Amino acid sequence: MSILVVGSVAFDSVETPFGRVEDVLGGSATYFSTSASFFTDVNLVAVVGNDFSSEHVDFLRSRSIDLTGLTRVPGQTFHWKGRYGYDLNEAQTLETHLNVFADFKPVVPESYADADYLILANIDPELQLEVLNQVKSPRLVACDTMNYWISSKPDALWKVLERVDFIIINEGEARQLSGEANLVKAARKILARGAKNLIVKRGEYGVLMFTGTTVFAAPAYPLEEVFDPTGAGDTFAGGFMGYLANTGNLSEEGIRQAIIFGSVMASFTVEDFSLNRLKSLTYGEIEARYRSMKAMTYFQGLPEGV
Amino acid sequence: MSILVVGSVAFDSVETPFGRVEDVLGGSATYFSTSASFFTDVNLVAVVGNDFSSEHVDFLRSRSIDLTGLTRVPGQTFHWKGRYGYDLNEAQTLETHLNVFADFKPVVPESYADADYLILANIDPELQLEVLNQVKSPRLVACDTMNYWISSKPDALWKVLERVDFIIINEGEARQLSGEANLVKAARKILARGAKNLIVKRGEYGVLMFTGTTVFAAPAYPLEEVFDPTGAGDTFAGGFMGYLANTGNLSEEGIRQAIIFGSVMASFTVEDFSLNRLKSLTYGEIEARYRSMKAMTYFQGLPEGV
Repeated sequence: MSILVVGSVAFDSVETPFGRVEDVLGGSATYFSTSASFFTDVNLVAVVGNDFSSEHVDFLRSRSIDLTGLTRVPGQTFHWKGRYGYDLNEAQTLETHLNVFADFKPVVPESYADADYLILANIDPELQLEVLNQVKSPRLVACDTMNYWISSKPDALWKVLERVDFIIINEGEARQLSGEANLVKAARKILARGAKNLIVKRGEYGVLMFTGTTVFAAPAYPLEEVFDPTGAGDTFAGGFMGYLANTGNLSEEGIRQAIIFGSVMASFTVEDFSLNRLKSLTYGEIEARYRSMKAMTYFQGLPEGV
Repeated sequence: MSILVVGSVAFDSVETPFGRVEDVLGGSATYFSTSASFFTDVNLVAVVGNDFSSEHVDFLRSRSIDLTGLTRVPGQTFHWKGRYGYDLNEAQTLETHLNVFADFKPVVPESYADADYLILANIDPELQLEVLNQVKSPRLVACDTMNYWISSKPDALWKVLERVDFIIINEGEARQLSGEANLVKAARKILARGAKNLIVKRGEYGVLMFTGTTVFAAPAYPLEEVFDPTGAGDTFAGGFMGYLANTGNLSEEGIRQAIIFGSVMASFTVEDFSLNRLKSLTYGEIEARYRSMKAMTYFQGLPEGV
């Protein structure tokens, strides 16, 4: 099954304690698509300017990402500039130039309208709603958002959240969205308002999934070198959705495996700037790291009924 | 097998966003002993003043903690006053009155000298060394420490660390001890200097254990109500060591189970002030939460050799 992703394609300038890069390929939809492309076909809806070179188009095509929905308009591509300190869990935004992204009106091409798996990356919730209305009967919808939309467009955002299967946000966003400092309370409140499942990303501390009846806790893969956390969350979502779309197994067991695949993908992305690590990544490496995650988290249960 | 613990018995005054208590029973050895007492016999070496009432002595006795090594001297018992904000991972110390603890010279009673399991709670590393020299041939030794000793007595501290099987410290302490921001690098450096295993406590994010050849990641049990994190680390160590002493199984599998039992014990402690939650705790509740931890972390591995 293929996935439809709607989000941003951008150029990033990033500084971390370990180096810096200028105007490299980035954006939520880019990280998501590249990550998901290891598992399934991806259809992309996004907008770029006329500075988006054929080198980048070729890269996305090389990952078998369908670019029918990638619109090119006059102007500059979205540009983000940020910095990370030694606490790599939190980015400091230095500059945001929306450029052509400011007028982004996502149009889902006819050929994508039957999408079974849909991810609404972090864009204006009003646009997320418009996309939802353009997709006929998706089997599974996930969405991301950010602090800016939580405070500026809560009503539109909640209309989205009520219609999705998975909200995939970070810890701070879960707290802000719920008004609860405690994550378990935050999850309860968010799920009570109609969202089906909540996945809370906690950076180097891993992920918590709340389904309403169960909790799943997955650690992040412990890395010795973290170069650049940019895109880790979108890469996680890409691996997560990609694996689900590949297997079609939406049981809790399948979903938990998808979370581990998502975590594995994110752990590779942060090992280098931009999408560099994903460019050389093989499926064998992905599976090997999945096995490491299993070995790293295993412990024996207690005997039944004792 | 019984455990010997050397550490502090104290009175704590604690303020959290959810309430406050004055002069309640606390101290590293108290939390450790009470937690371990659910699994095995505990021998305690500590000092208290003449303000340490029979009510507290009776409580410790009720947990079958041997108090031969609890010395009572003229003066006041160690008193700690601290505050937690909504970020419950970090305590702010308001007052520390060492009182009789300032002159604590731990003497291991003859009847404890054959101890098989020894925990050196957070005290002056020079005293930890003296204790080590008084215990004949322990099967397993663990120790804790804190930022103050890492910066003021690094040489004595390293002499301790080289002789213990498990260093049990928090994330910040692991970073300070190694001079490395990255935890995997920090662990590598600490283990390279001679310590056998490192357990890094990460508060609400759980625990990482580094053995030199393997890593084990355990989440914290997600709680809806965290009243007071005081003593969580010592309670963790108590459950960890208590389970090991109970089973005698020092294989990696046994050690991982012990980490889960330690995490479970800590999750109960933080549900109320002081040792209140442990006072009403049953072994059945401990096992039930262990099973929850298993259910919460389980995911399917990949088929072999695919």
